[in-house]
Amino acid sequence: MTAKILVVDDQPINLRLMQARLRDEYFEVILATSGAEAIEICRRETVDLVLLDVMMPEMDGYEVCRRLKADPACRHIPVVLITALDDMRNRITGLEAGADDFLTKPVRDLPLFSRIRSLTRLKILSDEMRTRAETTMRVLAGNEADAVAESGTGGSVLVVVDSPAEGERLSRILRSEHTVRVHVGPVADLEAAAIEPTDLLAIDLQAESFDPLRLCSLVRSNEATRPLPILVLASDGRDETRIAKALELGANDYILRPVDRNELLARARTQVKRRRYDESLRRSLQQTIELATVDALTGLSNRRFFESHLTASIARARTDAKDLSLLIADIDHFKQINDGWGHAVGDGVLRDVAARTRDSLRACDLACRIGGEEFVVVMPDADSEAAAAIAERLRRVVADQPFPIGGEMISVTISVGFSTLIADDTDATLTKRADQALYEAKRLGRNRVVLRAA
Amino acid sequence: MTAKILVVDDQPINLRLMQARLRDEYFEVILATSGAEAIEICRRETVDLVLLDVMMPEMDGYEVCRRLKADPACRHIPVVLITALDDMRNRITGLEAGADDFLTKPVRDLPLFSRIRSLTRLKILSDEMRTRAETTMRVLAGNEADAVAESGTGGSVLVVVDSPAEGERLSRILRSEHTVRVHVGPVADLEAAAIEPTDLLAIDLQAESFDPLRLCSLVRSNEATRPLPILVLASDGRDETRIAKALELGANDYILRPVDRNELLARARTQVKRRRYDESLRRSLQQTIELATVDALTGLSNRRFFESHLTASIARARTDAKDLSLLIADIDHFKQINDGWGHAVGDGVLRDVAARTRDSLRACDLACRIGGEEFVVVMPDADSEAAAAIAERLRRVVADQPFPIGGEMISVTISVGFSTLIADDTDATLTKRADQALYEAKRLGRNRVVLRAA
Repeated sequence: MTAKILVVDDQPINLRLMQARLRDEYFEVILATSGAEAIEICRRETVDLVLLDVMMPEMDGYEVCRRLKADPACRHIPVVLITALDDMRNRITGLEAGADDFLTKPVRDLPLFSRIRSLTRLKILSDEMRTRAETTMRVLAGNEADAVAESGTGGSVLVVVDSPAEGERLSRILRSEHTVRVHVGPVADLEAAAIEPTDLLAIDLQAESFDPLRLCSLVRSNEATRPLPILVLASDGRDETRIAKALELGANDYILRPVDRNELLARARTQVKRRRYDESLRRSLQQTIELATVDALTGLSNRRFFESHLTASIARARTDAKDLSLLIADIDHFKQINDGWGHAVGDGVLRDVAARTRDSLRACDLACRIGGEEFVVVMPDADSEAAAAIAERLRRVVADQPFPIGGEMISVTISVGFSTLIADDTDATLTKRADQALYEAKRLGRNRVVLRAA
Repeated sequence: MTAKILVVDDQPINLRLMQARLRDEYFEVILATSGAEAIEICRRETVDLVLLDVMMPEMDGYEVCRRLKADPACRHIPVVLITALDDMRNRITGLEAGADDFLTKPVRDLPLFSRIRSLTRLKILSDEMRTRAETTMRVLAGNEADAVAESGTGGSVLVVVDSPAEGERLSRILRSEHTVRVHVGPVADLEAAAIEPTDLLAIDLQAESFDPLRLCSLVRSNEATRPLPILVLASDGRDETRIAKALELGANDYILRPVDRNELLARARTQVKRRRYDESLRRSLQQTIELATVDALTGLSNRRFFESHLTASIARARTDAKDLSLLIADIDHFKQINDGWGHAVGDGVLRDVAARTRDSLRACDLACRIGGEEFVVVMPDADSEAAAAIAERLRRVVADQPFPIGGEMISVTISVGFSTLIADDTDATLTKRADQALYEAKRLGRNRVVLRAA
């Protein structure tokens, strides 16, 4: 996939050269000759990656990187620093500034393009979710996401290596900031790794007792492990094409041996941070969806969800030529509970009735609270006989076991009406019959089930 | 990026051969020897792509494809049919069955891997959104999405070619099912294409007056056009590596010249369908987010949004060392309107007040309806003087212009209280002071603005 790349360098000749190389590979290129200009562009436009020269007058690349990563509008854009120097201190400074990687001049094609492709692919993957979730997240989750994005320590790291000694070496470094598990040899049961909460997978690319590239592929091919960041450990010079392949398969970053303690920690923090950021986006989106569809008091679906669900269920019943029944239940004399013991006690009873309802239904039934003390259940594939059985079971689980109310155990009952789908029913007519049946159940003395046939 | 691929063939030897080729490229492979088994696997597991032999006993590949595409649980999985025959009729049958592409035996590496990479990349891109949105969508949007996914006609197609004659040739075919615009030569202003609602971009890969690969790259690099499907027109034999490059850059499909009418229509329909499906996912997610945060009656933000927004705004004001003011407005004697003219009229007044409020605020202010006839406005960067001016403007736009109530024009007023952030404020204390100020405004005779200093 192609991408839009911002190249930042104070030397026009460097800019032109890099532009030509990138355009030959069909990337779209924007140029900036200073850090200030680069920041301006990132705030204004969609940029997929920044290639950033470190040595610039006024504001150097580290500072530009720091500012980009501190700005909520830009922090998701990957930054690759380009420098003439390849000493470890500069590398760490760059990573600490939030850079996603480091390339040393002269920049060769293989590392350049494999890095760009890998970083932009990851960005584009999360863009959709980010644009949807970020606004909501910032308000609904308050500053939680910001806070979370600040810290890349305290993660859970799974190290997969060839020998216990190597595992111990890496673990000793990583343990200072994370919880570390070491796995020696082939990961037979990947699911186990997925189930335990893991924030980062560190894989030895030089392992021989298993195929590390195959492991990268396995992690990326399973839905459960797909979002897990992968950091591979490789050897300078020897592993260049294997590194490129690992990045192509979906590894997020690599580190070269001999492993520098500070570099490993910095790269691990970057990945753990990103993982947490992505997770907080996902959580926020999930929460938003729940807020829109779930009744906060009881955890059942809300009225809005019920209405759409009923429409869809009727359509499906028609297509599949199956039955469908609808049940409406109302707690008898609920007002007396609320008035007598207060709302808190009333709410407790509602929650309890909801829980009993949920427990007494089939997996395919959907229970909703549609208002005050009124509940409905949509029952696909249930004719009047099956629905009557479910309704009666529901009436009993409420009536048979008293509720703890104001320190006493007090009996509560519900009245239930239900209806079954007929040929020319609409949502409204089906609901209306169930409602009439409920009314009838109330009129007949409550704590009973009534069917309203067509 | 790697992916999990299901290979379906009744010949074990074919299965083994394909498995070896795919595993060499680090794809994860699952095998099935019949259509029934394949469908079972797709329903149960996460599959990223199906490579499906057409000639199988019992259920042939077309039927398997049809069933997969008819099943909401599987229809998003790309299907590539593999056949010994390459005549046009089979091709069309496959496309009509919903196949995403066709490969002819013997299947060569370049078309195989470029197709797999392109299709799985597109799938993985939309997976995240799909898994979030699909459940909600199915219920909240009812069967709209299903209906939409059924039809791939009536789309808006933009054809980009070298010559008017070629444009007319393609347009004549596509016009029978879509609205077609033809663009001859370089697309200088891509934004125009993005702004007009387009469902499909058909690009001539043999064009010489512009670089078609560059155009693919441009479309994919701009956020606005990124989701647009691209179909490239190429020449058999001559363009193989260019086709692979186009797919790599993000083209969704290709068709070979001489263009067969039915094949072009079938491929266009497939892309338009997918585009609509993706759009309906996006819309549904957007709606869900709105449902969770917007007050349905007035379109202002709701109480839940207000509460999180206030927390976030206070934190931001502290970080930036800026002012923040909070205003609470309440419609005077609203109960008389509701009781006298009914709820419908009351709702009309609420909507009208909300609209006037929105119009009288600065862009950075956020107005919310937090209950019955009560509104709040969060005003970042506003000290007590600025907030007083905004509050007074708001009071006036309500009081100065009477409301249409029951056929008459009747004057309505609001009382407004506001407070300004001080050092040790919490959400609760800031809100409480604004509330006390509102109470004071009511007590002093209504239709006025009161500040409650700390």
